[in-house]
Amino acid sequence: MRTAAKIHPPGDWVRDVKGTTYGFDAFLERITAFHGYPAPGLVIGGKMVDLALSAMPSGCLFDAIAETGHCLPDAIQMLTPCTAGNGWLKVMDLGRFALALHDKHSGNGIRVFIHTHKVAAWKQIDSWFFKRKPKAEQDSDALLREIQQAGEKILQMETIRVQPRLMVKDSVGTRGICPQCGESYPLKHGSACRACQGLSPYTTV
Amino acid sequence: MRTAAKIHPPGDWVRDVKGTTYGFDAFLERITAFHGYPAPGLVIGGKMVDLALSAMPSGCLFDAIAETGHCLPDAIQMLTPCTAGNGWLKVMDLGRFALALHDKHSGNGIRVFIHTHKVAAWKQIDSWFFKRKPKAEQDSDALLREIQQAGEKILQMETIRVQPRLMVKDSVGTRGICPQCGESYPLKHGSACRACQGLSPYTTV
Repeated sequence: MRTAAKIHPPGDWVRDVKGTTYGFDAFLERITAFHGYPAPGLVIGGKMVDLALSAMPSGCLFDAIAETGHCLPDAIQMLTPCTAGNGWLKVMDLGRFALALHDKHSGNGIRVFIHTHKVAAWKQIDSWFFKRKPKAEQDSDALLREIQQAGEKILQMETIRVQPRLMVKDSVGTRGICPQCGESYPLKHGSACRACQGLSPYTTV
Repeated sequence: MRTAAKIHPPGDWVRDVKGTTYGFDAFLERITAFHGYPAPGLVIGGKMVDLALSAMPSGCLFDAIAETGHCLPDAIQMLTPCTAGNGWLKVMDLGRFALALHDKHSGNGIRVFIHTHKVAAWKQIDSWFFKRKPKAEQDSDALLREIQQAGEKILQMETIRVQPRLMVKDSVGTRGICPQCGESYPLKHGSACRACQGLSPYTTV
């Protein structure tokens, strides 16, 4: 299901695309299971996805954009069916703590971001977000409590439209055999695969 | 847990990093829940992760590389704690159907890829992988049965070492406020955020 359900009992922290809700502590547990540890950015990210879902029109088949690779891709993957491997989630390295859900066909959608003015009212969040203290001096429990208390008060929502060129599905196209490594690769990459063109992440042994 | 357990009862399709095993059908169900549909590439990807895990030294804290954004990131995310949002999984657009797990510190690891010569012996897999037939003419059930039968027989494993420059943790660094959009961004990106530098995925309204 890639369309947003509309039921959201008050008091719960986040709701996923199917309408299942999770309390704050239950969501922390889910985060730890998927992400490895209860990252504050992912707790906020869950609220961001929840807010975006709540504003999407009923029945809208959507794709997602994370404007940073930090935490937000996981918030989207945990609460929607858009994943890094199915093509419905695009992870961009824009460095903004923001995400968007948008209609797969029209590109119209909802963007949610951390509002820097609003954050200023929350000491722990502000200090964590802008790294005003060394990590070791941060009070993780106080930070999480403040995130829970702040909820969507630190967030801002806006309507957006995704550029049509970014909605073209990235197709592998015809596959051929790389004359250098002998592995298959998309012929559109050139006369050899990109790894053999110098982009290999490995050292040659 | 980011170190590989060593128990792997025969007959099961994949084993995750904790040593929990899944039969073929159970893994198909998990794929459908996470990825949206039982993508053949993800079924094979699961076996690739399993094979890599089985060859990693006990107790090794590892990171992961997917050499394509198609399916393989999800296989890694489903069976290991390396995710798109926690920095332990790097998704590259090399176009090769390959993945690697490597020691977080030394860069030494295991790479698994589909071996094109071995695939030739499996009609359905060969036809799907090289797109020799239009999708509508493919027999999905026969393809999945063949994938189950082939198992790791279509895969090849090799030892690799990741380039040290790729193992440097991508830190956000100091955050500032973009003078154009007013949102926070990593100051290392320049005097404005990358979106305001022209990389925004949205149309201006």
